[in-house]
Amino acid sequence: MQEETDMPTRKILLDEEDIPKQWYNITPDLPKPLPPFIDPETKAPGAGIVPRIFPREILGQEMSQERWINIPDEVREVYRIWRPTPLFRAVGLEKLLETPAKIYYKYEGTSPAGSHKPNTAVPQAFYNLKEGTERLTTETGAGQWGSALAFAAAMFGLKATVYMVRASYDQKPYRKMLMNAFGAQCYASPSEQTASGRKILQEDPDNKGSLGIAISEAVEDALVNEKEANYSIGSVFNHVLLHQTVVGLETQKQMQIVEDYPDVIYGCIGGGSSFSGMFWPFYHDKVSGKAPKKTKFVATEATACPKVTSGEYVYDHGDTARITPLVPMHTLGHDFIPAPIHAGGLRYHGIAPTISLLASEKQLETEAFNQVEVFDAAKLFIRSEGIIPAPEPSHAIKAAID
Amino acid sequence: MQEETDMPTRKILLDEEDIPKQWYNITPDLPKPLPPFIDPETKAPGAGIVPRIFPREILGQEMSQERWINIPDEVREVYRIWRPTPLFRAVGLEKLLETPAKIYYKYEGTSPAGSHKPNTAVPQAFYNLKEGTERLTTETGAGQWGSALAFAAAMFGLKATVYMVRASYDQKPYRKMLMNAFGAQCYASPSEQTASGRKILQEDPDNKGSLGIAISEAVEDALVNEKEANYSIGSVFNHVLLHQTVVGLETQKQMQIVEDYPDVIYGCIGGGSSFSGMFWPFYHDKVSGKAPKKTKFVATEATACPKVTSGEYVYDHGDTARITPLVPMHTLGHDFIPAPIHAGGLRYHGIAPTISLLASEKQLETEAFNQVEVFDAAKLFIRSEGIIPAPEPSHAIKAAID
Repeated sequence: MQEETDMPTRKILLDEEDIPKQWYNITPDLPKPLPPFIDPETKAPGAGIVPRIFPREILGQEMSQERWINIPDEVREVYRIWRPTPLFRAVGLEKLLETPAKIYYKYEGTSPAGSHKPNTAVPQAFYNLKEGTERLTTETGAGQWGSALAFAAAMFGLKATVYMVRASYDQKPYRKMLMNAFGAQCYASPSEQTASGRKILQEDPDNKGSLGIAISEAVEDALVNEKEANYSIGSVFNHVLLHQTVVGLETQKQMQIVEDYPDVIYGCIGGGSSFSGMFWPFYHDKVSGKAPKKTKFVATEATACPKVTSGEYVYDHGDTARITPLVPMHTLGHDFIPAPIHAGGLRYHGIAPTISLLASEKQLETEAFNQVEVFDAAKLFIRSEGIIPAPEPSHAIKAAID
Repeated sequence: MQEETDMPTRKILLDEEDIPKQWYNITPDLPKPLPPFIDPETKAPGAGIVPRIFPREILGQEMSQERWINIPDEVREVYRIWRPTPLFRAVGLEKLLETPAKIYYKYEGTSPAGSHKPNTAVPQAFYNLKEGTERLTTETGAGQWGSALAFAAAMFGLKATVYMVRASYDQKPYRKMLMNAFGAQCYASPSEQTASGRKILQEDPDNKGSLGIAISEAVEDALVNEKEANYSIGSVFNHVLLHQTVVGLETQKQMQIVEDYPDVIYGCIGGGSSFSGMFWPFYHDKVSGKAPKKTKFVATEATACPKVTSGEYVYDHGDTARITPLVPMHTLGHDFIPAPIHAGGLRYHGIAPTISLLASEKQLETEAFNQVEVFDAAKLFIRSEGIIPAPEPSHAIKAAID
């Protein structure tokens, strides 16, 4: 029989009872109020079409000034399938880098769809079910958000229709199969299902699609079928970001277990939901005076799509077709077409208004990396940790290694 | 603030310290001794080429009469990346079926390669490193075993060469990418890398390959490069099955936590490693008189490849090319070509000798299902549990639902 050795614990685990009971909403803690949405038709403050495609509870959360929002039991019940997620101590990477620093990472890859996206897909599906919606529509690029929504819809017996950018649809057949397995319909966009899709196909039958086109199709589907269908979004909006705070709230409990507190928190930003889900609760510690350290927040983006490091902080549309209201954000312009890099989830021209406000108020820092240096960092991570990170979080890994 | 409700716990978790310190070997507890291997050249008992392609420690475990075998610290350290794995209480499925029975399933999908296969890939890589091997060779069909070995090799800095059946190689590009990400070479088999591969390609350049051909290539590669390379196998052999007992040993601890004990244990059988890893420790409870119940063990297979339900218990080769020794097992014949069903991992003509012996001694039962009824069962599971099971374990889910 071998003697017990003192191997460091790799995974810091919580019980299902530790799944947060409330989400944290950063809005009341921001250094200044968020500027309002502008209705693209009237050019005056207003939410435009938004109230026609979201349930009331989601609209309420989007505008909420409440700091803490209760998580329904039905949502926590589904969260239990994969939450709480492990916080890993990166013992292999620390050894490889010969660093005295302790490196931790929160691993959301154990969710049924493989990413953090179900954290918001589940409550969105639940509120829609509660308010009588029969079907959810959405767009997806690489497929992570589409499969998360397909999973969430299945959990509450809702139908789901996903418009997937044709280039991805052709390249990633497994993502489509995953959505189908959860019972969702998945169409290559532009599709024959909508007027906007048909119009594009008539002019260019081989059109490879774009996230902008897919959003237009999903929103049109929800507007045309207003009685039975609603639209669901995977990032950028406040309600999405606040649903993701279960990630940071769990991490706070896990850091308490190992009696540690972060000096720096790194995350990657596409629309901003994964990074916000992690750092918002620590930002609350900071503004409420609870933080034992001056924690730095660092958002990492791709040099191919540097909205915060190089973009302007102005009012812009979230979609290419300009159906959605104008929002105040760092943007490269709604018609910006990023290079086809691997980190598809970071190829969004704008960013969540909350991130933009915090960046302009110097509450967070931003760094941009190119995909070659990011892939080299991911390789170090794979060989030392044994886990293959997605291209998006590899940007944060690059920053942490530096 | 909501009141705490009594939602049942879905996941029964263990700490990293609960990872077993020893594997269980069923050999000394079998109702009769295992018949010896027969050397295909001499036709007398003997291991044939086996000692030339495996490290001594693995050979020792293959023949071991020890009931408990220590797990090296270096192996437990890598196991910590994903072990202990959760035992799920299938609360959603129980509700859907309106059954008073409690259903549990052990979820091995959180491993870096996505299956139970790394449980044996990691110790195999470790023992090879210890004995000076520089490179491992193996075959893979659907890609699960190949990616597990690629991961394990990366963890110990070994090179890995995987011969992947060409039909899968073409259909499953992501599996190849996964192996490459871990630093392994992956060739479509038949390949230009070996004499046996070149011979087949010369006669039939479009040959789609088979597991038999891929095994021949991997074994040839290890024999030709005997000084630097060894071969590694993913199932059937005793040493592989005993490495998998970490699954059942953890499950025993988890059942203790919920104060329960199984009436029936279902598993699927391709080569037999996943089912054996689960039921062997419970079989030990039974023969040692520790079991509080008369637990039934049920192996499920595909009607397309019914080796135990319809095959003969005779001496047969494990590979199509008949390089490997003759082993006593239930088999459909080494030249049996199963229908191209989805459950690729169950399409093996034979089965582990230990399973065969236990089946012939009526220590376990076998049921065969066709893929249509299995897929229907998987659909029920997905909608109620939110987790998409692989086609192989879906056979066990089908049996459990019945």
